[in-house]
Amino acid sequence: MGMTMIEKILAAHSVQDELKPGDIVNARVDMVLGNDITTPVAVEEFNKIGVDRVFDKERIAIVPDHFAPNKDIKAAEQVNMIRKFARKHEITNFFEVGQMGIEHVILPEKGLTLPGEIIIGADSHTCTYGALGALGTGVGSTDMAAAMATGKAWFKVPPTIKFVYKGELKPHVSGKDLILYTIGKIGVDGALYKAMEFTGEAIDNLSMEGRMTMSNMAIEAGGKAGLIAADEKTEEYLKGRTQRDYTVRNADSDAEYEQVIEIDVSQIEPQVAFPSLPENTKGLDEINEKIEIQQSVIGSCTNGRIEDLRVAAEILKGQKVNGNVRCLVFPGSQAVYKQAMNEGLFDIFIDAGVAVSTPTCGPCLGGHMGILAEGEKAISTTNRNFVGRMGSPGSEVYLASPAVAAASAIKGYIAGPEEVK
Amino acid sequence: MGMTMIEKILAAHSVQDELKPGDIVNARVDMVLGNDITTPVAVEEFNKIGVDRVFDKERIAIVPDHFAPNKDIKAAEQVNMIRKFARKHEITNFFEVGQMGIEHVILPEKGLTLPGEIIIGADSHTCTYGALGALGTGVGSTDMAAAMATGKAWFKVPPTIKFVYKGELKPHVSGKDLILYTIGKIGVDGALYKAMEFTGEAIDNLSMEGRMTMSNMAIEAGGKAGLIAADEKTEEYLKGRTQRDYTVRNADSDAEYEQVIEIDVSQIEPQVAFPSLPENTKGLDEINEKIEIQQSVIGSCTNGRIEDLRVAAEILKGQKVNGNVRCLVFPGSQAVYKQAMNEGLFDIFIDAGVAVSTPTCGPCLGGHMGILAEGEKAISTTNRNFVGRMGSPGSEVYLASPAVAAASAIKGYIAGPEEVK
Repeated sequence: MGMTMIEKILAAHSVQDELKPGDIVNARVDMVLGNDITTPVAVEEFNKIGVDRVFDKERIAIVPDHFAPNKDIKAAEQVNMIRKFARKHEITNFFEVGQMGIEHVILPEKGLTLPGEIIIGADSHTCTYGALGALGTGVGSTDMAAAMATGKAWFKVPPTIKFVYKGELKPHVSGKDLILYTIGKIGVDGALYKAMEFTGEAIDNLSMEGRMTMSNMAIEAGGKAGLIAADEKTEEYLKGRTQRDYTVRNADSDAEYEQVIEIDVSQIEPQVAFPSLPENTKGLDEINEKIEIQQSVIGSCTNGRIEDLRVAAEILKGQKVNGNVRCLVFPGSQAVYKQAMNEGLFDIFIDAGVAVSTPTCGPCLGGHMGILAEGEKAISTTNRNFVGRMGSPGSEVYLASPAVAAASAIKGYIAGPEEVK
Repeated sequence: MGMTMIEKILAAHSVQDELKPGDIVNARVDMVLGNDITTPVAVEEFNKIGVDRVFDKERIAIVPDHFAPNKDIKAAEQVNMIRKFARKHEITNFFEVGQMGIEHVILPEKGLTLPGEIIIGADSHTCTYGALGALGTGVGSTDMAAAMATGKAWFKVPPTIKFVYKGELKPHVSGKDLILYTIGKIGVDGALYKAMEFTGEAIDNLSMEGRMTMSNMAIEAGGKAGLIAADEKTEEYLKGRTQRDYTVRNADSDAEYEQVIEIDVSQIEPQVAFPSLPENTKGLDEINEKIEIQQSVIGSCTNGRIEDLRVAAEILKGQKVNGNVRCLVFPGSQAVYKQAMNEGLFDIFIDAGVAVSTPTCGPCLGGHMGILAEGEKAISTTNRNFVGRMGSPGSEVYLASPAVAAASAIKGYIAGPEEVK
């Protein structure tokens, strides 16, 4: 009997040769991740366990990105606490301000998440690494602590839903639109504690950036993971990024899926998720009202990669951000920052009246650097639009692609790229 | 009897032809300034006055820069309140995120502060405009409110201390070092409610950026203003920046000064102001201990101009920020940001491991984007090092020039540019 991707990866990391949904396994993990919100709790829990050392100082990544550069004294104390922990345990992958970026952007970028690997992270969007054919999944701080001590974690093998994306994308339709459309179709609990496998020609044709955007949002459908088979594009992406060996664990051809969902992507319009759930999606063609916005956010672990900034810059080129809108760009890492700058994208942004931030999670989770007041609306390339997510409980967030966020920034209301030409 | 700069400027804006220290005048103001901290209070006071309109919609400047891009919900609400006020009164100089910068960087940059003018601002570093031969001075929010309504403000004419800076500066000694040295000499109340006039060949030879740094910190000696005569450099700086007419009001040759202080600048070393007062200055040659730092801040209304970033980049070129240090650069405006980027300075910064922020006051006043934890020390090009200024009351700030801040970032302890070659 064949296995799905998640079954194969879990089996390869445990003593079992074969696994099926519902099995409980204790699996080795290849990387344990935490950020400035979750790591302090994990460090406290780790200290209670009573071991002297972490399981492997090269297989723990700590990224202060949510409230960094330090938003306030509390953030400063939290980061300082985990910094001391990282130094004590000589953790090699502690990313300080100036070297840092958004966790889910820098880990793939630095070759720390490889096909066939298991990465658990005390952050819900750890599922991003599914785009590289890895099992990335979010855990609590206590699991992070246990894994830092033991290098292992307990998993209940989830059933897998296979998504087959057929056909060719329309212009300006991206990975973000595909995943928003998918969440709109199955709902925010449509894949609850299930693995999602994204397959089909539209996925084959997607860039690594587009794939990472899709996997990143698997959790927004409740997914345990959002996996994409490693292929030539994956190999190409990894070139020069890693010295570690890895084994690709794509699904067997006779793998058993709980469900197979086919989607004809050629019919999909640019998507917008209305407040206050990512499942409240509409195609741009279905929006009949003029929804004025006061902020446009382009960046985050979902859409803060070079391709995302290129798309935004293409639309903002020679244009001006509407006088009623603050448009903020958050490159996902120092590397993305430098590349975007050197490609001339920042010139376009600055000329258009965009504020470019140093890499940080910023306002995505209501952290800092662009919080909304009561009654304000934002269009955002981030991943969640829950009530108060980006500020006041009386503010609202609409999720979309960089293309739509950029076009909306210019128009002052939610608009597609076609409208700004 | 001749008059000092401040006497001449005040006289030209009042009904009196001649003024002497101690006189009380009601003077026209050319520009009224507020930021996101002070303007909300001023707006509330303005609304109590009961006038319908502001005195001149083109002569009010509102710059949300302290907690912007919005740090939190409170900041968002404050900025939104003053944004609505600015729209209602059609205030032309409301600087939104994306067009904005630090108030005292953008106002001169946009030609809104001219020689001979009076600019009152609800921010203590409004004295910056003295560098352009203007009377810039900080006021409270209530005075800002009254001035928005009437276009006038009450002044008690202060006595003037004339500073004469003779000789030639050593390499890597800047306007920042001159003003720190001066404050060290006279103390933080050395010019309390007095005007300071900065004169002499060393001032003549200073760039406009260096002059703005000096005038900016007049308030740190208690000064009502820090004035520098307008000259060819001023005219050159203003070219293309303004359409408004202005009249230069430099001091009369027979002006009467309360005191004249001569300083031989050729003996001045790069200065560092130790915690927790700007007067606690030492030359680098007087520092015998190794003072380790955890943060280096380059920017602010004091040192966030293009020359400042050039100096920092020159020192950071090909170097790496010490692993124990976060180094943060805050360009003072979008224009400075773009120019620095296009000159290749950001490439140098990123390669060195510096985080470059969007323009904001950031951590200078403990706002956001680089707050210190207990026990942490920062070297900073900002203007105040009071207890807790940049974060925890248990943190410490050392003030210095961009050259010293950059060199210290590389070494990990307070060091001069000579030490990093």
